Amino acid sequence: MAVAELTSPASAYTHTTTRLRSSSQLSLSSTHLSLRFRRSFSPRNTTITCSINQVQAPVPVQTQKPKDKSECFGVFCQTYDLRAEEETKSWKKLINIAVSGAAGMISNHLLFKLASGEVFGPDQPIALKLLGSERSFQALEGVAMELEDSLYPLLREVSIGINPYEVFEDIEWALLIGAKPRGPGMERAGLLDINGQIYAEQGKALNAVASRNVKVIVVGNPCNTNALICLKNAPNIPAKNFHALTRLDENRAKCQLALKAGVFYDKVSNVTIWGNHSTTQVPDFLNARINGLPVKEVIKDHKWLEEEFTEIVQKRGGVLIQKWGRSSAASTAVSIVDAIKSLIIPTPEGDWFSSGVYTNGNLYGIAEGLVFSMPCRSKGDGDYEIVKDVIFDDYLLKKITKTEGELLAEKRCVAHLTGEGIAFCDLPEDTMLPGEM
Amino acid sequence: MAVAELTSPASAYTHTTTRLRSSSQLSLSSTHLSLRFRRSFSPRNTTITCSINQVQAPVPVQTQKPKDKSECFGVFCQTYDLRAEEETKSWKKLINIAVSGAAGMISNHLLFKLASGEVFGPDQPIALKLLGSERSFQALEGVAMELEDSLYPLLREVSIGINPYEVFEDIEWALLIGAKPRGPGMERAGLLDINGQIYAEQGKALNAVASRNVKVIVVGNPCNTNALICLKNAPNIPAKNFHALTRLDENRAKCQLALKAGVFYDKVSNVTIWGNHSTTQVPDFLNARINGLPVKEVIKDHKWLEEEFTEIVQKRGGVLIQKWGRSSAASTAVSIVDAIKSLIIPTPEGDWFSSGVYTNGNLYGIAEGLVFSMPCRSKGDGDYEIVKDVIFDDYLLKKITKTEGELLAEKRCVAHLTGEGIAFCDLPEDTMLPGEM
Repeated sequence: MAVAELTSPASAYTHTTTRLRSSSQLSLSSTHLSLRFRRSFSPRNTTITCSINQVQAPVPVQTQKPKDKSECFGVFCQTYDLRAEEETKSWKKLINIAVSGAAGMISNHLLFKLASGEVFGPDQPIALKLLGSERSFQALEGVAMELEDSLYPLLREVSIGINPYEVFEDIEWALLIGAKPRGPGMERAGLLDINGQIYAEQGKALNAVASRNVKVIVVGNPCNTNALICLKNAPNIPAKNFHALTRLDENRAKCQLALKAGVFYDKVSNVTIWGNHSTTQVPDFLNARINGLPVKEVIKDHKWLEEEFTEIVQKRGGVLIQKWGRSSAASTAVSIVDAIKSLIIPTPEGDWFSSGVYTNGNLYGIAEGLVFSMPCRSKGDGDYEIVKDVIFDDYLLKKITKTEGELLAEKRCVAHLTGEGIAFCDLPEDTMLPGEM
Repeated sequence: MAVAELTSPASAYTHTTTRLRSSSQLSLSSTHLSLRFRRSFSPRNTTITCSINQVQAPVPVQTQKPKDKSECFGVFCQTYDLRAEEETKSWKKLINIAVSGAAGMISNHLLFKLASGEVFGPDQPIALKLLGSERSFQALEGVAMELEDSLYPLLREVSIGINPYEVFEDIEWALLIGAKPRGPGMERAGLLDINGQIYAEQGKALNAVASRNVKVIVVGNPCNTNALICLKNAPNIPAKNFHALTRLDENRAKCQLALKAGVFYDKVSNVTIWGNHSTTQVPDFLNARINGLPVKEVIKDHKWLEEEFTEIVQKRGGVLIQKWGRSSAASTAVSIVDAIKSLIIPTPEGDWFSSGVYTNGNLYGIAEGLVFSMPCRSKGDGDYEIVKDVIFDDYLLKKITKTEGELLAEKRCVAHLTGEGIAFCDLPEDTMLPGEM
């Protein structure tokens, strides 16, 4: 994935937030006016007023540099009675969604998809909590201004900040895109360390202030190991709730199988990406299906499947950068939307989706304690189960063993960030996906 | 609006297209296999085959430079029987949508919104026809690759090309974003001329090959005068079908009125942008309403309305560029979606929307023969009517007269492109919106 930006772990954290709370968090006897204090890391005021007769309460737009005290952003500072709207419009309760790397290009696509209702549906009001860095704070304001100007009715709060302990408060979804790109001459171990530190800090913040059932999707690379670091630093949140994004790889694999088979992509199903989001990833053509038939029965060119298919999928991002001059922000954002929808909409009968998930208790004999992409199904409740009925052959097992070995090496390399002792880096060759760091 | 790129009027036009036609354009007795020739500017093959039992028909991905002959793009080359799917899924007939400046940032947001079904609905399959320049052709391929990888079920065709006479064939919507940015030292008259030539060419192409009822939304600046040039070069298409985008200005005005009044933006209605998409634009606070009341009854600070409001709206794009480091592509794309939806969904009772439309026959006494932003209503049939029940005061009339004067001057400056004689440029001060050229 293209990286958006560094989410600085600096100490000078500040936060700008909207103070409205959804009705679920309130115990109001009147819809007209209330005042409420809430304590988490710091006491704060929450003002709720009814918008129906309420006018003439101008609030200054936040245009300064980050401040120590929390302030709301722009038009989203307007207070109103969301409960009344929920009742009138049969809306669901507001949900809080945090996005890190919020000033980057992937987020610039994703935030508008979230705000439009495309992801969570037309009856789901949302609050967006944008996490950036001190360096990107002005850009975050720019993003918030564009969200204001978009007049999305479901977008009820926007807050921006650079302190994950404030931004992640009460969130139900964490979409972690921010990561630092590799600088000139930086070793892979150095990159694992610097991004690992960011994800360790964000894991701690999630552990401290997020909803106890927050769902976390890690996009910033190296995403599997970042997700592992994140979950290890959030012991009070179920490890099962953490995902590393391999959905773009799955989507690309489906498209290439469709292209080779001469069918439209909606005819391809049951595609698994196994393992690491890197060049060792394993797009599984053994279990994949086209028009319900095994791929190998449909695509007779098995040499292509074994020798070219995987490489085409892996190199897709690099080819795109050559063509387009930048990394694939739009399709990455689409794949994040797909990943969220796969958890909140029941998986179609007989099909599955890929996600990098915690390996403890997996049925395949993959080493425990990794974040490893596997086939999953969901009832649409935000949770998932690993699919049982897959088959393996020697080719697939050999590939899976290789990507497993890479993830084990990455894990050893970040042991200091997962509380598992002293790091020892013996990474094999550089297997980062081209242009996605 | 930020410009995407130059759509070159060069002669070396080529085109890559998918050859599938929707069932409405076919007269097949079988869904299994058919072959059809179609003549427009050049005879071409159209192959329709049924996908149900169809496999093993690999088609090479288009990766070369533009060619003279037409070819389809990637997975969208796959042939299939859309009519069967239309029947099975109760889908509407495929519609063809062209987007110019397709490799630019606004399009990079817009194309994915179109493909996702957010604009035309979940039962409307679409064909996207991307118009770029020879220089941007590889970037167009990159965009098409990202659209492939997004696996949008409704996106049934993607074609890319640099010849508007091919790209615009049979299109029902033309979203014209491409325009050339002003070079160093370029006079405004020079910019009007160079972009006017592009829009004259595209008008001729629309006139020659587009659907006779194509709806055209011009975004590339100066959008009002570009739209005028375009419609003057397309005499066989109703002038009423051409729009210049002022919806982003309207959205920004609504947001600022909400902010000042202390209400959420969904409480603001009946906002008109009058005139030119430039600094002479007139955001109308006289007719606008907040919670159903006239704005001036709600916002008592009339000095702010008269002296600050308009400038804030006009300068919003410039402030955003300062903050965000680039122009407002995402919210521009949102406003294009809003503009389309305003024509295909009935306007809510009592409300209206702004669009730059042809002034012939207008009720307000605005000079005829201009593209001028005015309040419109639609029954949702793609057509619109100009709203009758608006009021004027001296302040508003004076402002409208000024923006009308500017558009008349722009029109004199492009007379050579509208078939109205010899151009005479006496443009007043430079009123381009900051950062939007």
